[in-house]
Amino acid sequence: MAQTLSGIAASNGVAIAKAFRLENPELNVEKREIANPSAEVARLEEALSLSISELEVIQQQTAKQISEKEAAIFGAHLLVLSDPEMIGPVKERITTDKVNAEFSLQETADMFITMFESMENEYMKERAADIRDVTKRVLAHLLGVTIQSPSMISEEVIIIAEDLTPSDTVQLNKQFVKGFITDIGGRTSHSAILARTLEIPAVVGAKTAMASVQNGTMVIVDGLDGNIIVDPDAATIAEYEQKQVGFDQQKAEWAVLKNEATVTKDGHAVELGANIGTPKDIAGVLENGGEAVGLYRTEFLYMGRDQFPTEDEQTEAYAAVLKGMNGKPTVVRTLDIGGDKELSYLDLPKELNPFLGLRAIRLCLEMPDLFRTQLRALLRASVHGNLKIMFPMIATLEEFRQAKALLLEEKAKLQEEGIAVSDSIEVGIMVEIPSTAVMADVFAKEVDFFSIGTNDLIQYTFAADRMNESVSYLYQPFNPAILRMVKMVIDASHKEGKWTGMCGEMAGDEIAIPILLGLGLDEFSMSASSILKARAQLKKLSKADMESQVDHILSLSTSAEVEEYVKANLLNA
Amino acid sequence: MAQTLSGIAASNGVAIAKAFRLENPELNVEKREIANPSAEVARLEEALSLSISELEVIQQQTAKQISEKEAAIFGAHLLVLSDPEMIGPVKERITTDKVNAEFSLQETADMFITMFESMENEYMKERAADIRDVTKRVLAHLLGVTIQSPSMISEEVIIIAEDLTPSDTVQLNKQFVKGFITDIGGRTSHSAILARTLEIPAVVGAKTAMASVQNGTMVIVDGLDGNIIVDPDAATIAEYEQKQVGFDQQKAEWAVLKNEATVTKDGHAVELGANIGTPKDIAGVLENGGEAVGLYRTEFLYMGRDQFPTEDEQTEAYAAVLKGMNGKPTVVRTLDIGGDKELSYLDLPKELNPFLGLRAIRLCLEMPDLFRTQLRALLRASVHGNLKIMFPMIATLEEFRQAKALLLEEKAKLQEEGIAVSDSIEVGIMVEIPSTAVMADVFAKEVDFFSIGTNDLIQYTFAADRMNESVSYLYQPFNPAILRMVKMVIDASHKEGKWTGMCGEMAGDEIAIPILLGLGLDEFSMSASSILKARAQLKKLSKADMESQVDHILSLSTSAEVEEYVKANLLNA
Repeated sequence: MAQTLSGIAASNGVAIAKAFRLENPELNVEKREIANPSAEVARLEEALSLSISELEVIQQQTAKQISEKEAAIFGAHLLVLSDPEMIGPVKERITTDKVNAEFSLQETADMFITMFESMENEYMKERAADIRDVTKRVLAHLLGVTIQSPSMISEEVIIIAEDLTPSDTVQLNKQFVKGFITDIGGRTSHSAILARTLEIPAVVGAKTAMASVQNGTMVIVDGLDGNIIVDPDAATIAEYEQKQVGFDQQKAEWAVLKNEATVTKDGHAVELGANIGTPKDIAGVLENGGEAVGLYRTEFLYMGRDQFPTEDEQTEAYAAVLKGMNGKPTVVRTLDIGGDKELSYLDLPKELNPFLGLRAIRLCLEMPDLFRTQLRALLRASVHGNLKIMFPMIATLEEFRQAKALLLEEKAKLQEEGIAVSDSIEVGIMVEIPSTAVMADVFAKEVDFFSIGTNDLIQYTFAADRMNESVSYLYQPFNPAILRMVKMVIDASHKEGKWTGMCGEMAGDEIAIPILLGLGLDEFSMSASSILKARAQLKKLSKADMESQVDHILSLSTSAEVEEYVKANLLNA
Repeated sequence: MAQTLSGIAASNGVAIAKAFRLENPELNVEKREIANPSAEVARLEEALSLSISELEVIQQQTAKQISEKEAAIFGAHLLVLSDPEMIGPVKERITTDKVNAEFSLQETADMFITMFESMENEYMKERAADIRDVTKRVLAHLLGVTIQSPSMISEEVIIIAEDLTPSDTVQLNKQFVKGFITDIGGRTSHSAILARTLEIPAVVGAKTAMASVQNGTMVIVDGLDGNIIVDPDAATIAEYEQKQVGFDQQKAEWAVLKNEATVTKDGHAVELGANIGTPKDIAGVLENGGEAVGLYRTEFLYMGRDQFPTEDEQTEAYAAVLKGMNGKPTVVRTLDIGGDKELSYLDLPKELNPFLGLRAIRLCLEMPDLFRTQLRALLRASVHGNLKIMFPMIATLEEFRQAKALLLEEKAKLQEEGIAVSDSIEVGIMVEIPSTAVMADVFAKEVDFFSIGTNDLIQYTFAADRMNESVSYLYQPFNPAILRMVKMVIDASHKEGKWTGMCGEMAGDEIAIPILLGLGLDEFSMSASSILKARAQLKKLSKADMESQVDHILSLSTSAEVEEYVKANLLNA
């Protein structure tokens, strides 16, 4: 009999196929005293060598079926297995403490994992995940337990798992894996992001899928609404097939809009841009009909390495983005590190409240040499396209003035050195701190544009860490407090003949879009995959209609009232 | 020849006396192997017993010369010395590791200090300070070094020290210690607060005083402006004596205002209240002519104990405050814990950004039983005075509605139980989160009053942790962003016939007062010792004048411009 579960919709689309349970084998490691340490070391070496061969096969298979890039993770795993700093202590512990290889491996790995995880740095955390993943593989060999490899799947299935490890996810072959369901995870977990990249439907955080679904049972994954139907009847299958057809049609309809301008029903044009992290993302922006880059997060250039990128390296990256965008507006945000974003080679003092600490422009003004290098690189790249420079986390006018003064100084120096610099670079700021929204009229006299960073603006406006589950109910993009601040910023910019964009998640939200149009937002920047849907929605809306409703919306009392009003009146308009 | 140093003015007044250097003896602990552990344990016991006798003497002397309350710290030190969990491991380490007593003590103490400090809880941090302090004393005995005791001072001096330990500060006898200067510390450090309580002039954060001032040199401490003059000439001494006379006259002038109403030159009355932490503070409020308690921080009731206070205990405390205030308005803030305020007996999850986490009303709504107990106690106490209840950290209207619903439920229950409850309790909120300031018009329809908590409002509005030195430049009370928010709140309350108070440090600031008067603030709540000065200032101001300047001030661009404008135009008006 059919059973319905629900979870978090993580990747759009509907898939119907047999369940394939990806079991997480139990690896019970017990401590045993051993009589013959050298035999035990040999047993370890055997398991290491089996794991290495296995990883090499999976690496090749992944490179062939998925991509070289995705296969790289197994290169990292192979490195762990041949790292003397990791394997040396494992062997030593076997010999010195006369303990079994499993125990020695687990203890040593746990120490490294704890060490890397405590670094609170994304790059180091990934290293911890790699060690965890590869340790599991070696332990399985030591214990004689089999680890399933998704790359071995050769029929159409829907994967059910408690969670997918990084090495599981990169082995997913779209040809056979039609969708997946995990019991844990959220919309931004690694596996959810990968599902969206692969464009396969996925539901995460389903909690009880592993407990409820047998191997081979027919399952429907509805990644549009987060539904899971186990053992559906024919009518339900037909219904969901229809839902998939509808989704495909909608995608086709959106695809047609790729080269169209974003003009509302009543002839008002807005700009739809994309948020990107590396020059490689430009391909996706253009494929999805992006008219601009509304936010290029330059911090990725600084991550996953062991020293600051040089001026030349940076110039190259910025030039690549500008050339790739071929004259379309490209807003580059200067370095935003600190807070939850750390660099392994920059030792910043530990802060009690890093989100309220020395980050972004605050750090750049504190370390002007670091900042000047980036500004010079941006200026040098500026001749290759339509560059706009944006400073993050500006809280006071003095900060903007200081940052702009450094930019102008570097520009003058470059010109003295005879290096060409564009003369039409706009210089703007992120509005993501309440003080700046409230003072937007004052800022508007000096900046060229605003871009509202809603993720941080919401977090500070409600004094609620957006990463903290206990206060997640306060992440309220539709609360009139936020909408009023957005209005202050847009009105202030227009009064001075400037423009306002938005580059937080809110800009691509279908409930927010009608309100933002009514408030007069000039540029909407979102993940590239949301652009066509947003364009479709905007083309059906009338700006004059939306404008006429904005005062009412801003006078509502709560986020819930706004959401309800928009759903009842402004969607499917 | 005279030399001038400067530091942070920590306690008002001028003092002139000979310098008394309170040296921090160097305690160099080296690790030594010892041949005879039991002799070493005996050496430790000798040092412990000397320290105990010494502490008993200091305790008695402090109780006699200062107060029983201040002497209590030595009771805590004596407890540490007789705590087997502390002393046991010290002895054990001597015996097991065959190391000297100094090393064993230091290692053990460091472990406890690290443990208590890592708890990030004020109460536990104090325990760490106690252990540090008492360990120093025992080490000094072991090493044959003398620790100076300020209680032994018997002539008029100004103490110069790198820093004062808690045990130093409680030994300060006003009769002989005319002032002090420390090289480290800030306005809110323990020693600065004590100086204000004792009303002796102090300058902290002087950096080089220990390096510059010899024992017995004549020194002037100017706690009004943070100046230090070493070896002054006769003219300078006369000048500063005059300054002290001026200060005394001003204090006398203020004292006359104790029983006067706070009415401006043009006849506008405002209310001057005090912020308090315990019922004992009421005496100071009345002595300083406080017309109200604008903020009673109830969390102190929950601190320094090992379980929640019962309903009866709370009722008693609230009734004591209400009776003490004898019908004057008394605003009680419900429990504000979480963030930097933890309770040893309430295990809250560790948060990455505690200031943006589960604290105050958020925690109370999450733990309604805890909250209901406090609300019942407040309601039961309400018949004893003029109670106003205030909820902290309200960010959304739903939170206020939920909190108020719980209050009304408990009120109905008490009435059913036949317990008397006042029918005129006003229910208001702290405005300390930007969303609430921006939505004040909506809140004003449902709350009875607002009280603006500037410390937190500033921190969130600029997204800058007010405890973090690196971003302290963003603590800008006079930034027009803050002033505009204050205006939104006051205007919204008046439109609905409600009132607005302010209970952050800003309410007692002489630069803020003229602006706040101009904006129409109804109640100013500050530390009791600031009330008379504020009353003197307000009586000289005209509300109409201030009102006429507010629009100009709010149109300024930066905090610095506002400060400059007020200093040039509105002080000494």
